Amino acid sequence: MIKYETKMRVEYYETDAMGIVHHSNYIRYFETARTELFRSMGYSYDEMEKSGIYMPVLSVDAEFRTPAVYDEMLSVFCWVEKLKGASIELRYEVRGTESGQLHVTGSSSHGFTTPDLKPMRLKKEAPEIYEALKSAME
Amino acid sequence: MIKYETKMRVEYYETDAMGIVHHSNYIRYFETARTELFRSMGYSYDEMEKSGIYMPVLSVDAEFRTPAVYDEMLSVFCWVEKLKGASIELRYEVRGTESGQLHVTGSSSHGFTTPDLKPMRLKKEAPEIYEALKSAME
Amino acid sequence: MIKYETKMRVEYYETDAMGIVHHSNYIRYFETARTELFRSMGYSYDEMEKSGIYMPVLSVDAEFRTPAVYDEMLSVFCWVEKLKGASIELRYEVRGTESGQLHVTGSSSHGFTTPDLKPMRLKKEAPEIYEALKSAME
Amino acid sequence: MIKYETKMRVEYYETDAMGIVHHSNYIRYFETARTELFRSMGYSYDEMEKSGIYMPVLSVDAEFRTPAVYDEMLSVFCWVEKLKGASIELRYEVRGTESGQLHVTGSSSHGFTTPDLKPMRLKKEAPEIYEALKSAME
Repeated sequence: MIKYETKMRVEYYETDAMGIVHHSNYIRYFETARTELFRSMGYSYDEMEKSGIYMPVLSVDAEFRTPAVYDEMLSVFCWVEKLKGASIELRYEVRGTESGQLHVTGSSSHGFTTPDLKPMRLKKEAPEIYEALKSAME
Repeated sequence: MIKYETKMRVEYYETDAMGIVHHSNYIRYFETARTELFRSMGYSYDEMEKSGIYMPVLSVDAEFRTPAVYDEMLSVFCWVEKLKGASIELRYEVRGTESGQLHVTGSSSHGFTTPDLKPMRLKKEAPEIYEALKSAME
Repeated sequence: MIKYETKMRVEYYETDAMGIVHHSNYIRYFETARTELFRSMGYSYDEMEKSGIYMPVLSVDAEFRTPAVYDEMLSVFCWVEKLKGASIELRYEVRGTESGQLHVTGSSSHGFTTPDLKPMRLKKEAPEIYEALKSAME
Repeated sequence: MIKYETKMRVEYYETDAMGIVHHSNYIRYFETARTELFRSMGYSYDEMEKSGIYMPVLSVDAEFRTPAVYDEMLSVFCWVEKLKGASIELRYEVRGTESGQLHVTGSSSHGFTTPDLKPMRLKKEAPEIYEALKSAME
């Protein structure tokens, strides 16, 4: 299984009055991480959308274990946990790049749809992407 | 059980290129809704923090059912689902105020802590807040 | 001249590690304020966009005088400073609602355009909106 | 004069319903760019704040020329325009990395202060930083 690592630095505007990353921003970090996972397999979201494949978020969850702070370099790991014909589940781990400390874990599930958000069977409509995701799980 | 309703309008900066509210913003709407639930009981977060009681987010989850759009008026309902001595679980429903349509459901759990994030037994340290939360559940 | 007042409360996610509102958020408050100014005149942005009139931001500036803090209720005043056939300049003042303290001043200029961002002469294409804006200046 | 280049990719959550980067995000890109300019000179904001030197934003302005879009790689150029004993003015240019197209120009001015936001003469209190900034202008 490929756990793809995306590095990003905590920006000042992502911190809050507690002096730590506001929890809502990790949901955004997850999005960046899955975008980069897909890009690493040769499929950018942007191109997928242009070719008519959308991946709206059906659900998301996160557990906040230790806070990340301003200017910290983070490693966000993302991998495919489950793949069905018309949906996918991804998992995430956010760690301090230097410390290795676990900050946040989470997951998101997505449907594959047409641009007008009708369900699409990825396996049938874009088998090469389906196979790439399948092999990334192994 | 009190399901407290907070109304808010979708801002342009909260939409994304799909023309709908970016999913990460619902996590922020949840925060606004629980802030207003607490205020409605006479306990503002701000004053709670100033009196030494913090409520860091331990976990959050959300299910996205139908998209909300720009300028839509939303009703975010928030209520206490579980209350323990040192932690609390809240639930949320985001609906279109006019349509009543269900957009998003979710929950968050929080610990009660001191300003340096050490666990605090709310029941012992601030029994009046604990009792107010308890009675809001009934 | 109508200085339209929009009230809003500072959210936790809008603060930063300095314990104050992150300066970028005032640019968002300006947007909310001009949206409400237009709504007060009977023209919602949403409906304007649906009827083919866009108002992209050409420039923005802000001066930060005193910081606003978490949970503070703000009054954002917005008014039309200049109106030309195909562009408009708006001004803003952000004050503490209770204290009256001036936090931020600023301005933004906008072109009127078609949905594909081609310049449009508002005076000619939507004279009733042009006249409403004109009279709001007086 | 050193025009320091910081590259960043447009995230989905930074786009809006017009399908382009929401204008408020450029103010955040400016912040990232000046942070990296300072880091390139050996002075991270984080360490500056820890050593008691703050740089609150006094004013900001931006001109939006052409829109940047989702997934576009941006080059944000930042340089020191003016340096006084207790304040600094920075300028910015946001361009498409590949296209070279100019999207946004802007500037920000900052005071140097103590942690409780009292003005500080950088030239006197931290002459090595002052000199580094001075030489970056030449």
